[in-house]
Amino acid sequence: MGIEDRLREMGVTLPEPAAPVAAYVPCVRTGSLVFVSGQIPRRAGLLLYPGKLGAEVTVEQGQEAARAAVINALAALKAEVGSLDRVRRIVRLNGFVAAAPDFPDHSKVIDGASVFLQQVFGEAGKHSRIAVGMASLPLNAPVEIDLIVELEPGS
Amino acid sequence: MGIEDRLREMGVTLPEPAAPVAAYVPCVRTGSLVFVSGQIPRRAGLLLYPGKLGAEVTVEQGQEAARAAVINALAALKAEVGSLDRVRRIVRLNGFVAAAPDFPDHSKVIDGASVFLQQVFGEAGKHSRIAVGMASLPLNAPVEIDLIVELEPGS
Amino acid sequence: MGIEDRLREMGVTLPEPAAPVAAYVPCVRTGSLVFVSGQIPRRAGLLLYPGKLGAEVTVEQGQEAARAAVINALAALKAEVGSLDRVRRIVRLNGFVAAAPDFPDHSKVIDGASVFLQQVFGEAGKHSRIAVGMASLPLNAPVEIDLIVELEPGS
Repeated sequence: MGIEDRLREMGVTLPEPAAPVAAYVPCVRTGSLVFVSGQIPRRAGLLLYPGKLGAEVTVEQGQEAARAAVINALAALKAEVGSLDRVRRIVRLNGFVAAAPDFPDHSKVIDGASVFLQQVFGEAGKHSRIAVGMASLPLNAPVEIDLIVELEPGS
Repeated sequence: MGIEDRLREMGVTLPEPAAPVAAYVPCVRTGSLVFVSGQIPRRAGLLLYPGKLGAEVTVEQGQEAARAAVINALAALKAEVGSLDRVRRIVRLNGFVAAAPDFPDHSKVIDGASVFLQQVFGEAGKHSRIAVGMASLPLNAPVEIDLIVELEPGS
Repeated sequence: MGIEDRLREMGVTLPEPAAPVAAYVPCVRTGSLVFVSGQIPRRAGLLLYPGKLGAEVTVEQGQEAARAAVINALAALKAEVGSLDRVRRIVRLNGFVAAAPDFPDHSKVIDGASVFLQQVFGEAGKHSRIAVGMASLPLNAPVEIDLIVELEPGS
């Protein structure tokens, strides 16, 4: 079963990739790698759960936001490479969590994205990762997530 | 017109690259990629606009600082590879903004660097990016910026 | 002298690599590069110096924590590639410091990791780097460190 069939089966629709709000591009390809720009959890034009973990945003809401952000990253990736079946491996996920100074659960929040990638891509979705706490994020987003992805040879 | 001619035309002089203040090197090359270390907006030995966005530093000052930081990154890159004409693509810009907890405009600040790269490199300057808010940065810098750059084959 | 002999000579024992506390893997290899996931300064199951630089954690403690975190990164790397003698170059170190808003010495803290890498790997240990200040880190860790490493051809 192809990756996009699996997404459909999971009830996930990739959104139209958002135009960057600033002077950059959603993806850059170099060799077999694609660098995907940082994504925030916008869904249908609305920012999910603005605020900070450890304050007005719960861990469960943060996980949903992380999932929404990585879905936006996949939408950007698909627009760049044509089909998500070309993904050989999710190499790296950088997870930035807007967090109160005493918040300890960044890893649980970013798991919302990491678990999703493994559900979608299986072994190819197992990635290296950072999860860190930010003073603030653009537009008061609760998370920002970027990816480095390896494509199949010849893609 | 070469990249360094364009910089001259824009009135930009690349500084002598600063020696790292610590135990690392300004650039590492691996294959066709160069990883440039994080740069702060030092100009002629002086740190521009120490402080935080959303507090004592304005968005306009932050943009000027972001531009100065990325100019330092280009100076480091030129010292590594000899000529900026060897740049095939700016692959990634990581933009770290020292920011108050309620600051929303990280993207506008980092645009100070992103717009500059596109003015200098044209299409090759269009990069993927993150823009995130930090609790603090070295020496109280308002921004820190690093780059990943792809070189022309055979460079 | 091999890298692991040098570690022994320095009195450093690589720990059993910790299982990730979340849904990701410690390392991903792509081409000649290995991306090592973010590591916190856990030693023998205990987190070193929880808290923030510029508050309850001193620069000296932060340096020791940075060294412990990068030792954990090397343990993860060795588990992935078999022998640290396969390292051709430490390409990048990302240093995240949990820091008070007015803390200026992120570079000194991360030097605890950078100096160590140069002691162990010599020229091959000279890396590009960022050092930035975070609002908070997982489990209240004082630092988180990740690496990008280039392997010898044919490794």
